Amino acid sequence: MRIIRFLDDKGQTQLGIDRGGLAELLKGELFGKLEPTGKTAKVAKLLAPLAATNIFCIGANYREHAKESGVAVPEMPIVFMKPTSAQINPGDTIKIPACCRKGPEVDYECELAVVIGKPARDVPEAKALDYVFGYTAANDVSARMWQKHGGGGQWVRGKGFDTFCPLGPALVTADEIPDPQTIRLRTILNGQVMQDHTTGDMIFTVAQLIAFLSQDTTLLPGTVILTGTPQGVGAARKPPVYLTPGDEVTIDLDKIGKLTNPVG
Amino acid sequence: MRIIRFLDDKGQTQLGIDRGGLAELLKGELFGKLEPTGKTAKVAKLLAPLAATNIFCIGANYREHAKESGVAVPEMPIVFMKPTSAQINPGDTIKIPACCRKGPEVDYECELAVVIGKPARDVPEAKALDYVFGYTAANDVSARMWQKHGGGGQWVRGKGFDTFCPLGPALVTADEIPDPQTIRLRTILNGQVMQDHTTGDMIFTVAQLIAFLSQDTTLLPGTVILTGTPQGVGAARKPPVYLTPGDEVTIDLDKIGKLTNPVG
Repeated sequence: MRIIRFLDDKGQTQLGIDRGGLAELLKGELFGKLEPTGKTAKVAKLLAPLAATNIFCIGANYREHAKESGVAVPEMPIVFMKPTSAQINPGDTIKIPACCRKGPEVDYECELAVVIGKPARDVPEAKALDYVFGYTAANDVSARMWQKHGGGGQWVRGKGFDTFCPLGPALVTADEIPDPQTIRLRTILNGQVMQDHTTGDMIFTVAQLIAFLSQDTTLLPGTVILTGTPQGVGAARKPPVYLTPGDEVTIDLDKIGKLTNPVG
Repeated sequence: MRIIRFLDDKGQTQLGIDRGGLAELLKGELFGKLEPTGKTAKVAKLLAPLAATNIFCIGANYREHAKESGVAVPEMPIVFMKPTSAQINPGDTIKIPACCRKGPEVDYECELAVVIGKPARDVPEAKALDYVFGYTAANDVSARMWQKHGGGGQWVRGKGFDTFCPLGPALVTADEIPDPQTIRLRTILNGQVMQDHTTGDMIFTVAQLIAFLSQDTTLLPGTVILTGTPQGVGAARKPPVYLTPGDEVTIDLDKIGKLTNPVG
């Protein structure tokens, strides 16, 4: 099922099954009982498919990206977080923060985002995917100077500005993606492909990440895990490429769809 | 006003004004309209005074603690986060994680916790305290081996296990603490004072932290900011002192009260 969250033409927030511009309305809660109503509504404005409860992010989870970033291949997952205030909808503007205007530094990162559907704690790798409600696409927008120099080595400040976590366009339920390590993911900046790789190259798989993160830790329903980005980020290109006002950036994941945001 | 959140003797969650074992019930929302009802209820079980929306934490924000930790005095605040799943109530057990049992490593940190009451974005230092709803006490429980070696340098994993964020006992409204840099804060472990200092020695004041964190970032109502801990943490003592099952740890802040948790 391709679930979308949207504003209908009366401005009300709805959940529905994506029918391309239209949606079959769903009744109930995203992580509770959710039933198709048979009724159809027009999608006036697409929203991020959920309001995240916590956003965990994994750093350097693809071999070639670790290399281009000058980071050793990690022995265990590198975990940081974004505040929930960072999330925005498809189509919303990624805003270059006023405090990031000393020089260009704001970068894109295409990522597979995992959405946890039921409380997960001490989950073994073999059962980890049972706790996944579905998958969506994310752009782990990153201010590179802040990430490197503005947080005493901690990445939360440089990764946590408002609009730094576009999510969407749809939440594709786990039954439609039985193997999350087979998804092609791309970043397209102003029509040019900047990243093009597969989740098959992750250092730690989705199941391993859930097992790791849930050690002695409850992943609440609505937890979103950004699973890392492959090679091709702007900061590692020669010359570097950074987001500037007027750009349009699309994160395109097979089976999930295109998450497009203008930059302002 | 000393606001507490608690279970009454019918098991219902209530907000009230602390009257020592009893509470004058409050009606409404914590960050909305909140009115005394004149009715009194028995406090059956004290809860953390709020359910945090995001938990920001500041590292190395006291000079002597930076020194004992071997960290340079930071030029700007070091920001990390805890997931909201880490928060627990006064009296709840701090659980030593199963994955932290290779050697003792779990430590206490007494901290002043700031609770944001209304959306704060790009707030200048001079107006920052207007956005504070109130203050409570926090224990920034930390797994030192995980913090140092288990997160590729990122602190989220070592600071984010379940039960690693006790909050309470009361939320003291900002009008009662006009100057948050005058609070004595202590950690008492099994009756012995381990930390005893004042918030006056913070490197970055509460107002400076809010100004810094709200740069291009919306601090949502219910955001909790743990403002750092002074010297005397267990890991820096000779010999080191770590929390072990059977311990009882109290964070005691003047004007706020005692936050006591057993260790299990």
